[in-house]
This record gives sequence, structure tokens and C-alpha cells, in this order.
Amino acid sequence: MAEKVTLIVFSGEMDKALAAFNLAIGASAMGMEVSMFFTFWGLNVIKKNQRPIKSRGIMRKMLNSMNRGGSKRLPLSRFHMLGLGKWMMGKLMGDAKFPTIDEQIAIAKEAGVKFIACTTSMGIMGITRDDFITGVDSFAGVATYLADAREGKVNLFI
Amino acid sequence: MAEKVTLIVFSGEMDKALAAFNLAIGASAMGMEVSMFFTFWGLNVIKKNQRPIKSRGIMRKMLNSMNRGGSKRLPLSRFHMLGLGKWMMGKLMGDAKFPTIDEQIAIAKEAGVKFIACTTSMGIMGITRDDFITGVDSFAGVATYLADAREGKVNLFI
Amino acid sequence: MAEKVTLIVFSGEMDKALAAFNLAIGASAMGMEVSMFFTFWGLNVIKKNQRPIKSRGIMRKMLNSMNRGGSKRLPLSRFHMLGLGKWMMGKLMGDAKFPTIDEQIAIAKEAGVKFIACTTSMGIMGITRDDFITGVDSFAGVATYLADAREGKVNLFI
Repeated sequence: MAEKVTLIVFSGEMDKALAAFNLAIGASAMGMEVSMFFTFWGLNVIKKNQRPIKSRGIMRKMLNSMNRGGSKRLPLSRFHMLGLGKWMMGKLMGDAKFPTIDEQIAIAKEAGVKFIACTTSMGIMGITRDDFITGVDSFAGVATYLADAREGKVNLFI
Repeated sequence: MAEKVTLIVFSGEMDKALAAFNLAIGASAMGMEVSMFFTFWGLNVIKKNQRPIKSRGIMRKMLNSMNRGGSKRLPLSRFHMLGLGKWMMGKLMGDAKFPTIDEQIAIAKEAGVKFIACTTSMGIMGITRDDFITGVDSFAGVATYLADAREGKVNLFI
Repeated sequence: MAEKVTLIVFSGEMDKALAAFNLAIGASAMGMEVSMFFTFWGLNVIKKNQRPIKSRGIMRKMLNSMNRGGSKRLPLSRFHMLGLGKWMMGKLMGDAKFPTIDEQIAIAKEAGVKFIACTTSMGIMGITRDDFITGVDSFAGVATYLADAREGKVNLFI
């Protein structure tokens, strides 16, 4: 049986998403079985790049218009500088022939990495299945994560 | 012997505390044995909701008056907005019938989750045992954490 | 064979670096074999305390002049306050006879902790081997990390 790797992607930041996909793609290439659990701000990484999602209630509307998400809208955890730092980081990645987040998502999916979206966070934030990119394998909670992680060789919270 | 889960709660942020308790309570429900190691800003999660703690020295006084902590005073890691974002998140959690941090602490304790406060951080920050809620099982350092984690099936740094 | 501990140091923050070295030194003292993988902002922890590194291209120059790094220049993740909070934290650590980051680096190296710098991040950011302190054992990517972590008893992302 293949060794398992589980990654909780809690953060919705571009740099941490890069680290997560780099680990996921690397582990897949080594024949390991990888699950990525997207939760809380991390759900932004796998949201569609679209207009703010529709949600009920004034507070959910406010939250979801600030916290739009989508792979192209993730901030840097440092030096974001209203987007300038993030834009620079994108350029530097391009210079180094490093794939974009969208490209990494595609590579990860092709390599068989499982994407799981956390239903608890979705419930709190008012996010629905339609708000995500295709490629999400399942919608589940903490029990699903733990069932995987207890078999994992490498489990990280990112 | 029950499988072990260890969680280092380093961050004093509300959203990360939610993730930590969600994991801890979920793992307990699955029959796993959970230890939560609260360290650095994470100590705020298990501080009493009280006035700033008394500490000696002008710098400790300043630090502890800014960094008061207590379950009701944890900021959000994003969109805190001087408390507005945090207040909204609390409302959304309530709407979704999701327990508050205080309720989650109570559920975790009832489920037998062990709370350990890091003595090294307490020493640096000038925090004493009296500053914590009841329910802290022990006060210990890195050796105690590692003795647990080396037996752990799932070890996360949150 | 000694039990292995692997730590990914992603964050370039002083408080998280303290946590990482505390774990690394503690695990070494317990006879465990520790590898620290410095990546992204975490590379700052093991950069020389020198003038901004020379790099090619206007954007790398800008990034590397903002993101100078070096053990003495790491910000606090909270209450940094333009350096005041960080200075206070240094004082409190001194009061508690807690070693500085530089001292912890020296202790970790003496204890045999392995330092690995992430070549992927170095490539994106335009950082060269000369920019690091002596004591970096190797320069490697995600495959090297995973080969270690799959054997690890405790693997953390900090």
C-alpha cells in the first residue's frame, strides 16, 4: 500500500499554498498518496476565480465579498503591500519557470492528489459546492481527515 | 492502547484555536487520546477572561496588558478589523449552531483532552499558573511534548 | 537507529524560530535525530546578518532589500510594533536567561541538528549559498525533505 501524506491547508495565503502544492506534487512523484484538506481561509485556494459568491444574510455577504478567494486572489503572508508584493512574487516565480498556483492545481490533480473541502467551514462561511473549482474530490469534516491522517506517514498543518 | 494525537497550539488566534479544538474533539470522539500543548501566543487561549494579569517589571506589564488573552479576546488571523470581523465570525458560528471557543474548551475537557501549558513561554512572558482557567492538566516543557509526540499518530503545529 | 524529527521552518518570524529551535534542541537532547528544512521566509533565519544581498533584476533587488533577513532582523508574528515589541521580547528572553536565536543556532549545530536550505525558494528569491551562515549542511528540495519525513516520528510545519 502506498504511503500516505495529508496536508491541512488552513491558510489562504499564496506563499503557503505554494508550499502545500510543492509538497503534494513532490510526494505524488515519489509514489505517495496525498490528500489535501482545505479548511477555513484555505478554502479560498480552491474557490473559483469569479465574482463574490452569493450568500444569504448581510454578514455572510460582507464576509464573502471581502474574502472572495480564488487562486488568483490569494495574498502573500508577508510584504503583500496591497498586491504589489504579490505581483512581484508572481513575476519572480515566472522568471524561475516556477508554475503558478493554477498550474500547480492542475499538476496536482493530474498526479492524483485528493482535494477535500471542509464542510464545517463551508457551513460557517456560507460557501456552497458550486463555489469551488472542479477537481474537489469530496466534501467532508474532521472525522474524514483523521481517518486519513492516522494512516499518514507525514501529516502537516499549513 | 489508544492512538495518540498531539497538537501544539502556538497561535493565539480565534480561527486557529477553532481548528485545534475541532481536531481535538473529533479525535477524542474517535477514541484517540489527545494532548494540546499551548505555547507562546497560544497560552492566550487558556488564560482566564479577566483583567490584565499582574506581572513584575515594566516590560512584562506592557506585554501582558497588550497581550491579555482569554478565550473571548482572541483575534482573527485575517479580517480582524479591530474586532468587527471577529464579532461577525462569532455571529456566523452562532447561526451555524457551532459552539463558541468556551463551549469547545468545555467539550474538549469533558472528552478527556489533556491541556498542557508551556512553562518556557510562561517564564519568558511572566505568566503564572493562577492566570489560567481550571482544566489545565499540567505545566511542562518541550521534553514532555516530545515524549508524547514520538508516540503520536498525528502531530500538528497549529 | 535514532528516531527522526523533521521541522519545516517556513515562517521568518522570531517567535516561530524560537519554537522551532526549542523543539530541535530538545529532541536532540533526547537522542533524536533532527533535520530543519528552511524554506521561503524561513530562509531569513539562517541568512547572514549582513547588508542586503546582491541579486540580479530590479524586483529581486527590491524583495531582498525589504526581506533582508538574518537572525537579528526577524520580526515578531504579533506586536512587532516597528521593532519595539521585538526588542521587548528580546529583553524578556534575556531576563529569563533564555538563549538568543544566534545562541540557539549555535547550540543546535553543536547538538548535530541538520540545517537544509530549500533550493526552490532560493531560486525564486534569487538567494545564493554565500548568503547563508556557515552551518548549513545541505541545499535541497522537497524530495530530500520527504525522504526524511517519511521516516520521521515527529514532522512539523512551523
